[in-house]
Amino acid sequence: MPRTPDELRGLVEDYVAELALQPELGSLEAPIRHALSGGGKRVRPVLCLAAGEAVGGEPTHVLPAAAAVELVHSFSLVHDDLPALDNDTERRGRPSVWAAYGEASAILAGDALLSEAFRLALVYDMTAVARELMEATLAMIGGQQQDLEGGHDLAQLHRLKTGALFNASIMCGVWAAGLPVEEHTPWRAFAGELGLLFQVVDDILDGDGYVLEVGADGARHLADEAAVRAQTRLDALEADTSVLAEIVSGLVARTS
Amino acid sequence: MPRTPDELRGLVEDYVAELALQPELGSLEAPIRHALSGGGKRVRPVLCLAAGEAVGGEPTHVLPAAAAVELVHSFSLVHDDLPALDNDTERRGRPSVWAAYGEASAILAGDALLSEAFRLALVYDMTAVARELMEATLAMIGGQQQDLEGGHDLAQLHRLKTGALFNASIMCGVWAAGLPVEEHTPWRAFAGELGLLFQVVDDILDGDGYVLEVGADGARHLADEAAVRAQTRLDALEADTSVLAEIVSGLVARTS
Repeated sequence: MPRTPDELRGLVEDYVAELALQPELGSLEAPIRHALSGGGKRVRPVLCLAAGEAVGGEPTHVLPAAAAVELVHSFSLVHDDLPALDNDTERRGRPSVWAAYGEASAILAGDALLSEAFRLALVYDMTAVARELMEATLAMIGGQQQDLEGGHDLAQLHRLKTGALFNASIMCGVWAAGLPVEEHTPWRAFAGELGLLFQVVDDILDGDGYVLEVGADGARHLADEAAVRAQTRLDALEADTSVLAEIVSGLVARTS
Repeated sequence: MPRTPDELRGLVEDYVAELALQPELGSLEAPIRHALSGGGKRVRPVLCLAAGEAVGGEPTHVLPAAAAVELVHSFSLVHDDLPALDNDTERRGRPSVWAAYGEASAILAGDALLSEAFRLALVYDMTAVARELMEATLAMIGGQQQDLEGGHDLAQLHRLKTGALFNASIMCGVWAAGLPVEEHTPWRAFAGELGLLFQVVDDILDGDGYVLEVGADGARHLADEAAVRAQTRLDALEADTSVLAEIVSGLVARTS
């Protein structure tokens, strides 16, 4: 029996909580731990583990890749919250890293989270996991810059800021699990749908983004369509994708 | 005949000037190019190429690793100059990146430089180059945090802030050139001496650091000792290290 999403989330929580940081980081450990323990849903690393397990990878083996994805996500939140960017003093009901530890330490803690993410992605005997992650990271950074400038189209912005890392969550999982590259194409097709689905759902919950652009009913319709497409892509995979299907339905159910 | 330091510097300049950035970075290209074209001495990538050539690596093959080292150096300068850290409005006679492009773009440009550095380190068919670079990056970040806090010992601070990346410059070069790992030990010993030598020389030129701690004559003495140790390590290598010896003497000559 494949593990349930909650079981996978438990594995991620334990792994991230016990993650040994590079000792040279010294007192940056506190802001880094603050950023990593914020009670997020861990949806990206859970997707990574579920994809890895669907193609036969043991969670123990896929966990460094899953944690790497989560650390990249965390890096991006720490830097995006800074006064010069989104100027957010709170994140999930707690002080943001810069509000709690100061701007300088938040800049350095973000840098360290990104570097530690790459360190995790490099435990494998191949460069592919790290390369997937790095490409997604560059897309996210470019998306954040476009967001600062304003006036760009929402679909492209979401693809860069959210879609790229969802894509990498799935692909890092299947690389880490050792799926031969000839079998990656249908996985990449599924991965490409996930980012949009997550973003539309998020916009519906927050009442912004697509809701402002196409209205509440329009956004709801977009989410349903994206969920159907994701499910179709899942059905095309020759693997037990029941856990991934459960995660996709769980995403959609959040909005109803 | 191995290439001279100036020839190697020319190769680095051309490679960095023509470096194709990830297209998603969009308008971040301008602050990134600003950071990369500041007229630095390129001492780290030149050392990387010289070490690679000494063990038989073609510069064309070692250039991505050399550029990766330079991009990590550049990332660290862009973030260290920020108002929340060193608050420097100038760097090498030109506006620092944040002074020219604003804080938000400087934070993102630094993030992008670090990610592009890892992208370059991952063009090899092994994870070793990227792992060397990532460990040095984490040491530098930890060193910057210690510097903010003050009150730490200067030798350790220099080892983290400067030594680690000099070390990586040499080791990325020999990895990229394909030197078998059994032959790395004497190279690592040489690499370890370089960071201290560079830092003492820099302190003498700036009249700070070691000069404040042990006086001008004391610092001069430390530099001479470090140069002798570096030369001894070089002599122990079974390779044509004439170009590396020239770079080491060039460093010391800057102070006399």
